[in-house]
Amino acid sequence: MNSPLPISPSDLDPMARKYPLTLPAPSLTNASGDIDRLMSALKGVLPAGKTAVEITVPLDLVRRASSIMREVAYHVTAVVAQKDESLELIDLIAGHNPVDCYGVAVDVGTTTVSLYLVNMTKGEIVGKLAVDNPQVIHGEDILSRIHFAQQRRGLQTLQDLIVSCINEAITILAEKQRLRPSDICAVSIAGNPTMTHLLLGLSPYHLCREPYIPVINQPLQIKAEELMINTHHEAPVYVFPNTGSYFGGDVVAGILASGMHRQSGVSLLTDVGTNAEIVLGNRDWLVACAGAAGPALEGGGAKTGMTAREGAIERVRIDRRTLEPVIEVIGGGPARGICGSGLIDLVAELFLAGVIDPRGRISDGKQTRRIMTSGDVKAYAVALAEEREASQDILVDELDIGNLIRAKGAMYTALSLITERLGVRFKDLDTFFVAGSFGEHIDPKSAIAVGMLPDIPLERFKVIGNSAGIGACMMLVSYKLREEVEYIRSKSAYLQLNVENEFMNRLNAALFIPHTDRELFPSIRPSTSF
Amino acid sequence: MNSPLPISPSDLDPMARKYPLTLPAPSLTNASGDIDRLMSALKGVLPAGKTAVEITVPLDLVRRASSIMREVAYHVTAVVAQKDESLELIDLIAGHNPVDCYGVAVDVGTTTVSLYLVNMTKGEIVGKLAVDNPQVIHGEDILSRIHFAQQRRGLQTLQDLIVSCINEAITILAEKQRLRPSDICAVSIAGNPTMTHLLLGLSPYHLCREPYIPVINQPLQIKAEELMINTHHEAPVYVFPNTGSYFGGDVVAGILASGMHRQSGVSLLTDVGTNAEIVLGNRDWLVACAGAAGPALEGGGAKTGMTAREGAIERVRIDRRTLEPVIEVIGGGPARGICGSGLIDLVAELFLAGVIDPRGRISDGKQTRRIMTSGDVKAYAVALAEEREASQDILVDELDIGNLIRAKGAMYTALSLITERLGVRFKDLDTFFVAGSFGEHIDPKSAIAVGMLPDIPLERFKVIGNSAGIGACMMLVSYKLREEVEYIRSKSAYLQLNVENEFMNRLNAALFIPHTDRELFPSIRPSTSF
Repeated sequence: MNSPLPISPSDLDPMARKYPLTLPAPSLTNASGDIDRLMSALKGVLPAGKTAVEITVPLDLVRRASSIMREVAYHVTAVVAQKDESLELIDLIAGHNPVDCYGVAVDVGTTTVSLYLVNMTKGEIVGKLAVDNPQVIHGEDILSRIHFAQQRRGLQTLQDLIVSCINEAITILAEKQRLRPSDICAVSIAGNPTMTHLLLGLSPYHLCREPYIPVINQPLQIKAEELMINTHHEAPVYVFPNTGSYFGGDVVAGILASGMHRQSGVSLLTDVGTNAEIVLGNRDWLVACAGAAGPALEGGGAKTGMTAREGAIERVRIDRRTLEPVIEVIGGGPARGICGSGLIDLVAELFLAGVIDPRGRISDGKQTRRIMTSGDVKAYAVALAEEREASQDILVDELDIGNLIRAKGAMYTALSLITERLGVRFKDLDTFFVAGSFGEHIDPKSAIAVGMLPDIPLERFKVIGNSAGIGACMMLVSYKLREEVEYIRSKSAYLQLNVENEFMNRLNAALFIPHTDRELFPSIRPSTSF
Repeated sequence: MNSPLPISPSDLDPMARKYPLTLPAPSLTNASGDIDRLMSALKGVLPAGKTAVEITVPLDLVRRASSIMREVAYHVTAVVAQKDESLELIDLIAGHNPVDCYGVAVDVGTTTVSLYLVNMTKGEIVGKLAVDNPQVIHGEDILSRIHFAQQRRGLQTLQDLIVSCINEAITILAEKQRLRPSDICAVSIAGNPTMTHLLLGLSPYHLCREPYIPVINQPLQIKAEELMINTHHEAPVYVFPNTGSYFGGDVVAGILASGMHRQSGVSLLTDVGTNAEIVLGNRDWLVACAGAAGPALEGGGAKTGMTAREGAIERVRIDRRTLEPVIEVIGGGPARGICGSGLIDLVAELFLAGVIDPRGRISDGKQTRRIMTSGDVKAYAVALAEEREASQDILVDELDIGNLIRAKGAMYTALSLITERLGVRFKDLDTFFVAGSFGEHIDPKSAIAVGMLPDIPLERFKVIGNSAGIGACMMLVSYKLREEVEYIRSKSAYLQLNVENEFMNRLNAALFIPHTDRELFPSIRPSTSF
């Protein structure tokens, strides 16, 4: 299950690295200090370009180094971490230690916290875990968390919650790989501005009050122990900087993962999650906009909906003749529910097979055991408890389909409004990046069919998964990307679109599958014409 | 009593500095982060050459900064310390704080610890204090301390002792200037290799065992709180690096203070203290040698001897006719004893006045109430209890004079042997630097008269006081001198002279005032010829 990160070998520049060293034994003619001898051996093996860099050594390690060096006859493994422009010897191990260097990347979302265990030596993701953000008990959304943080010990409580959550997840990920926390030598974190503030213990008070001021927008130099994160205590922590109170490190990390900031053509990146963020731009300019407030797409809002985890139906195809579905379940076990991408697939297929009409109503004309009435509402059974691959009946009814239509309508309306305001036509987009934990499984063909994504050639879509998480992983493996982060920040602007009225006007036209204006979706041809 | 340091205004580059700033208030059109706004204002006032430098901010200060900035309508004082090549914001004070930035320089000697309170803003020493090194209770000399450090908790005990001693002295120095510990924003420390190891909590075990390996010879990046030094907790601590197990940071600091490493002509620097160190060299090479083991000169070994503190007679002149002394007492109060420089003056004057012969015996031919017999031994009373300026009889007898002669003989023998071995003649020396807490008060004329220093033109001598302490003070005021420290280290070698036999052969000839070979001291002409 190891997935390599999109980093070319020449760009490998891990945040921490191990160097096995055999030091010359001290003698009367080589009587340099122990640390000096170590440093000079280390400089001999550092990659080109790092040999002139200053290497700091924490005092605590200076105190222990002499005896460590003598333990295995001057055979040691130096663990060296990057710290801005300098290097730091964060550990010294007696003997030649063969374990690769690992790092943890965290995407701190308001609802979900996604963690990635990364083998920095090989440039691969070796473990993933998504857990609920436990801060949710003190407020579902960002505003209520900011409010809670003002209470006595509120900020500390929220910080403790997220740190414990991260630590528990790290323990699970590490144990699976039989690693000790001290084998994890670097941490990379991306989050929206509020989540970043809470994690760092910074007051988010001014974030949501005019003129909306973050405490800090630049990267900080932090060690894991300062945040009580349970890795190697000297592990450097890179926190993706925010660009403004609405433009978080998660968006920056997402742009980094997409690579849109390197392209000459204009691309669009959208994170289809709780709050759809849209970024438009190229290597010369980047504009982020808040997706207009629409219903959540994650889990689709369906009664049998769930987030994209083990047991979720993530792919659906419907036989045009028998109307029987073929499903794919995450993890391959029995289906327990349906996630966003599954729901989009299902609605697209139901529409293309003529089971539902453009308003999302289940047609009376189709005869199949799959169509049933649940309560007063018609439903389609995408999985039946009696089937091998299902643990229960999984029904999607007209209300669920209606919710999806409102969500996809909001998404499409936001996309079309924002691109229009920025003077970009869908057909001129070079690449359309679909991100989000939701987006990891989405099938652009189905998303076009329901009218959520614009009808542009399929090859222009690039589904990149949790771009914030991937961006955070990439930083672990190629620390020099922090220069690209600065580049991204320097080219970025946030656009607060005042489109409330226009949005509502347009939304109605998008509440059809795929749209009232069929010319916008020329490629979508259902088997029944309505 | 403020003494300016020998740093030209263009070289002022204090280790810490305060910048009063008036920040633009945040607005919708200036919505950058609080720390970003602060940094951009700071970059606008930094001295040229520092504007491109990275500025780190400790997380703890990031957490407090927003409210500090809003306390006095965005008027703040940024306290910025230098940290190797980068800068660190170590404090942020609400309002424009007018207090200058202070630093503490420490010369950690085996016997005496000298502290200097330095106004880094003005480049002046504003307070001095010399205290006994409390480690002395666990061993008088370096070897016994190294031995004690091997015992259970021995190292920790020695470290705690020296740190408490430094902290008590800092408290006294600060209170005298009505400063709080947090006004002291930088620390600079010079000591011999063993003292440096003990202060940093590094094991000195290998220092005294072949092949004599220090733990570390390069400068470290440390904060005051890591060493529990009672200044601003984020104050950077510069520890002068050792160059080898016999060539300490104190010698490096002394060379720095002398400036001999910048001169084309060859100079000699000797620290006339517990262990006379001799450095010979110029801008191209520097060789340090251990002064051959001779009796201690500090306090002169006299029964009424004392170190150069308040109450010590430091200058003596004797009327050639009446044989009455004129004395100068440190602090101007009553004399309580005589220090090394006073004793050298006294012996020189007694010799020049014909009271003592070249062997140091008090002549029978001189009649004065000052000459008396104490026990069986003849003595000269340099101060009498009945006199206004004395609290007690201060006698120096023939045994004391004999001790001084052995000490000065050893010193001269070491100087002549070492210069000879390095092929340098005394008369070719450009400058002869006389250093040491002892050397702060020494009169070269008297030192030549007794035959301790060579008979070269007086204007070539430069008495520079506690050069290690002065070098440490200079670093506080001009942090760019650390490049000169690296230069000094790169040009330095330690020479272990095997001169035991030769030394003993020559010593005998030097046990006369000034020497058996009168041609070596042509300028010395006593009033009586022996």
